[in-house]
Amino acid sequence: MQKLVYCTVRLKPELRSRLEKYARVFELGEEGPAPDLAKVEVLMCGPITPQELDAMKNLELIQCVYAGVDALPWSHVREDVIVASNAGSNADAVAEHAFALLLAAAKRVVFFDSRIRGGNFEIVGESRMLHGRRICVLGLGAIGTRVAEIAKAFKMHVVGYGRSRRNTVQVDEFYTQERLNDALRGCNYAVIALPLNKYTHGLITYEKLSLMKRDGILVNIGRAPIVVKEDLVRFLRENPSFIFASDVWWNIRNPSEDADVYSLPNVVSTPWIAGAASSRETYEEMLRLAVENVVRYLRGERPLNIVRHEDYK
Amino acid sequence: MQKLVYCTVRLKPELRSRLEKYARVFELGEEGPAPDLAKVEVLMCGPITPQELDAMKNLELIQCVYAGVDALPWSHVREDVIVASNAGSNADAVAEHAFALLLAAAKRVVFFDSRIRGGNFEIVGESRMLHGRRICVLGLGAIGTRVAEIAKAFKMHVVGYGRSRRNTVQVDEFYTQERLNDALRGCNYAVIALPLNKYTHGLITYEKLSLMKRDGILVNIGRAPIVVKEDLVRFLRENPSFIFASDVWWNIRNPSEDADVYSLPNVVSTPWIAGAASSRETYEEMLRLAVENVVRYLRGERPLNIVRHEDYK
Repeated sequence: MQKLVYCTVRLKPELRSRLEKYARVFELGEEGPAPDLAKVEVLMCGPITPQELDAMKNLELIQCVYAGVDALPWSHVREDVIVASNAGSNADAVAEHAFALLLAAAKRVVFFDSRIRGGNFEIVGESRMLHGRRICVLGLGAIGTRVAEIAKAFKMHVVGYGRSRRNTVQVDEFYTQERLNDALRGCNYAVIALPLNKYTHGLITYEKLSLMKRDGILVNIGRAPIVVKEDLVRFLRENPSFIFASDVWWNIRNPSEDADVYSLPNVVSTPWIAGAASSRETYEEMLRLAVENVVRYLRGERPLNIVRHEDYK
Repeated sequence: MQKLVYCTVRLKPELRSRLEKYARVFELGEEGPAPDLAKVEVLMCGPITPQELDAMKNLELIQCVYAGVDALPWSHVREDVIVASNAGSNADAVAEHAFALLLAAAKRVVFFDSRIRGGNFEIVGESRMLHGRRICVLGLGAIGTRVAEIAKAFKMHVVGYGRSRRNTVQVDEFYTQERLNDALRGCNYAVIALPLNKYTHGLITYEKLSLMKRDGILVNIGRAPIVVKEDLVRFLRENPSFIFASDVWWNIRNPSEDADVYSLPNVVSTPWIAGAASSRETYEEMLRLAVENVVRYLRGERPLNIVRHEDYK
């Protein structure tokens, strides 16, 4: 009998048909009786509760719709379940957003636009160049790779930092995990494109920030908890020329708790929109790639982007 | 006897020494008696008045410090005077600024940062992708060439428009001067990197804007009067999804007269800072290159970036 795919997101008809060539499919929210979760073999999900996961006693594969798998209730994911991320599905969109934030900070677009709306055209302070500057790309997955490629087009000196170097990435220097200090030291700019897991949680502390130039810019399009918030606030208060430009937040359900960050003058903020959240096109591409990866599994092939349980447990 | 160079901007000692190997040098504002303008053979200038130009009866070369030569009082420039622009001297800085404006508009950074400062994290509307989109680069001089190169790194479809195609520029399509309609038709984005002269003044009308996508973005880092302001205001009012992102203004001495543009919600503004105005580093590089070009002339070589009088008269 065909496997049962339980999908917590709605699919366009053509994507559903694609899956139905190989499996029975139930989409959360569709009409008709919900299936017995104990019979679900493949879960394609955004958010999922521990209770639902516990009930899926025959689960074989979790295919996440999002690039990061950090939101899964990992202590409820059995060891034998394959977990696949959707890494790379939104890499272009997120890399573009990283440069939108970096350039908005470097050229002070928000600052000046607001002054001009008040009729003030006075030029104060200095724009920062990208050309010739040292940028550390933290994480050289699909997003970090695109960030590095675009940085080279801006003629920047690109320092890569990550678990392993992919041959395809053009960086000027590369440092593996234990050499974060060497990667950050003297950098003008840094872009966080790491997954959030037990190795990256709290990675960026006051001491790490202090390795960068005092008029530097830190861009976060990864996950907020990679940065120790209290350390960041202290560093930003002490270094008014340093700018933090972020799309991701610590308390997204109650973002006013992050007001200690976003209300600082040396912060540029967007509301977690780099990937799918404000681009239907990007979201649809993510669903398409997630479905293709599930199809790979249903055909007996090895899915792409399998993550290591031990990174998250 | 050595020629007399009259410089309306202040030079660092090493640049002055460089000129003094080949010429007598007077910097406006320096101590001692001002020279007789009638004896000036080389003028290195930012702004200059018609009266000063008229007095320079022995003038051979005008070397502009700025990339554009449109601010010269052209009707007072004798036909036999060589005029050299400083094209290319700030190309990296201005191209970076073009992408700061384009990305700020595409990802709505100003809009969201302002909402977040008010505690509002609600996601509304759509971000625009650069990847795969059609961008028209108007003017393929040094700045436009850099814009085209960076656009390729963002995987955009690059349409070039200009007087002549340089072999070094990688564009996907190219249109010469009389084919502006073909260049703009169907474009998502356009960047104005043209000089302001009699051929480009008022080039972008309501009809030209109408050729672009209704959710397009026009970036101007060239000169404001290339765009017909009344047409732009009408087009922006009729097409609230279209965004104008500009660093240059029509009435820079009295910018409140441009409030009809910068106060619109679908406008992103910076106060003419892309080049030297907010970057000492860029300004010093511009002075260095201007001095090198004057040295070229003083040595009997042909200066770079000689402009055609007929483009401006």
